[in-house]
Amino acid sequence: MKAREPDLIARIGHGASSNPTLSLPLGIGDDAALFAAKPGFQTILTCDWFLEGSHFLRDRHPADAAGWKCLARAVSDVAAMGGEPRCFLLSLALPPSRTGRWLNEFLLGLRRAARRFKCPLVGGDTTQRQEILINVTVVGEVRAGRAVLRSGARPGDIIFVSGRLGEAEAGLRLVRGKGSVRINKKDPTLRKHFYPEPRIALGRYLSNGRIATAMMDLSDGLSSDLPRLCAASGVGARIAAAKLPAVEMTARRGAKKAEALDPLDLALNGGDDYELLFTVPPSKARRLPRGFQGIPLTAIGEITRQTKLTLVHNDGREEIIRSRGWDPFQ
Amino acid sequence: MKAREPDLIARIGHGASSNPTLSLPLGIGDDAALFAAKPGFQTILTCDWFLEGSHFLRDRHPADAAGWKCLARAVSDVAAMGGEPRCFLLSLALPPSRTGRWLNEFLLGLRRAARRFKCPLVGGDTTQRQEILINVTVVGEVRAGRAVLRSGARPGDIIFVSGRLGEAEAGLRLVRGKGSVRINKKDPTLRKHFYPEPRIALGRYLSNGRIATAMMDLSDGLSSDLPRLCAASGVGARIAAAKLPAVEMTARRGAKKAEALDPLDLALNGGDDYELLFTVPPSKARRLPRGFQGIPLTAIGEITRQTKLTLVHNDGREEIIRSRGWDPFQ
Repeated sequence: MKAREPDLIARIGHGASSNPTLSLPLGIGDDAALFAAKPGFQTILTCDWFLEGSHFLRDRHPADAAGWKCLARAVSDVAAMGGEPRCFLLSLALPPSRTGRWLNEFLLGLRRAARRFKCPLVGGDTTQRQEILINVTVVGEVRAGRAVLRSGARPGDIIFVSGRLGEAEAGLRLVRGKGSVRINKKDPTLRKHFYPEPRIALGRYLSNGRIATAMMDLSDGLSSDLPRLCAASGVGARIAAAKLPAVEMTARRGAKKAEALDPLDLALNGGDDYELLFTVPPSKARRLPRGFQGIPLTAIGEITRQTKLTLVHNDGREEIIRSRGWDPFQ
Repeated sequence: MKAREPDLIARIGHGASSNPTLSLPLGIGDDAALFAAKPGFQTILTCDWFLEGSHFLRDRHPADAAGWKCLARAVSDVAAMGGEPRCFLLSLALPPSRTGRWLNEFLLGLRRAARRFKCPLVGGDTTQRQEILINVTVVGEVRAGRAVLRSGARPGDIIFVSGRLGEAEAGLRLVRGKGSVRINKKDPTLRKHFYPEPRIALGRYLSNGRIATAMMDLSDGLSSDLPRLCAASGVGARIAAAKLPAVEMTARRGAKKAEALDPLDLALNGGDDYELLFTVPPSKARRLPRGFQGIPLTAIGEITRQTKLTLVHNDGREEIIRSRGWDPFQ
């Protein structure tokens, strides 16, 4: 099925900026979108690539999961500042063969995510391309002065993560390993890989209550992301392997698969979890609940003055953490 | 030359958000950028694809022109609302072979444009890809209630364009036609094609003075863009062929090339000019100067109640205007 650009824009824009509760005087169909920030708030801006072949596989990832995930990833950056998403722009390049069913399913997933994250589509750009290229810009808001940066961690702060680490990577390996495309979307690691949930409410709780001193989202894996937080803060970190909330290897997956997947490796180096990594001063850390809206919050180590990153194994052996997570240029 | 992602981000970000006059508390290196709008202003959001093969040719377009143009195109959308650009996000995907000289020259052109448009880089996303993919999000501002939309044209309004139409297309044909890559950048049509100037000051003048009732930028060509303005306003238009400020075919280009290029065709259907198309009520049109800061302002026709688009030829013959400009899905 072939479509002309105006039709595509109309289909993509359908119902997009019709939310009357938003202070968005203008949406799709003009040169640009207009956005009015709430008084006393700063605007958060972030954009993210989501490219066929690099970030998703056309034949392995359902189109609605691509729609959900391209928005979830960018929204996660807003959550990681302690902000709330307000609206987004979609830049979409498609081959003509994908302007039919694929696009419809993609838009279903995208709209489901937009509703879930309270983040409507307000503009963007479309063009034709042999591959599917997606770029999402999310606009968020945070109370002025409350944004949680990567640079605020201090020696002695306790390092926390939300959720379980490595689940999305375990899901990805399942997707890659399967011969057929029939995949049980109810598998928790697959759900995490296909439909990640940015931790918006948790990020806001940690910023509004001035609980976190530094925060970022885990997109490339702990071994890649923790060094970034430490570098921005000019500190180091000591992490306990035993404390990492790793993927639970269930018997039902069978011995063979459990052998192939090392939970510690997944927790350190698996990307795409979109959990929050944050630091909390010891006095506040003691009062932090062990979970927030059903998401576990786990202390995994502490910030050190020495600017190296150490992993303490169960047997007391110490190891320097090396970035083995996702780097597109590696 | 191969580079790792952190090095790339550092090079791209070099000097990017160091402008102390900006109310941007945070730039590159965190999860997202923070932006504080001026009181009484609305934020303008726009994003634009700039893709190798589709929007530029790696072997025909100098890297610095790609850098300039990817920003100029998106800034033009802000100008077309009557706003001023404030900052931008860059999403860049590169093959490893282009992270050396190509990237350096690209960044030179990009920074030159950023200085010229007073629009610094504040964030973005980088990834690896076999082709060069660029997506630019520009954040602008406009005094609340002063944004000039496409939907405000009324029957009787005079239709104006800035500059000359078809110059960029003439430049593109010169680029495509040349056997060698040595191109004289001082040729005015090539300058327009390589380094377009978004009409920021003109757009602001037309919005601040409440002169224009509707406005948009000419990116796909008059025959494609005028119908969009008319559709948004629920009106039609009558354009006089004799009044179109077309490209002047100089003798020095030689008879052969002049024959191949039809100025009227270029003015109607040539894309990439980034001139402003705007409508002005007759009372104000009479007082509008014939130029603004050296850019000609030309009345080319008028808005009609009848919702068709007519071109009146020099001999009085009337023709329905059909969109023959750029549509990526055609």
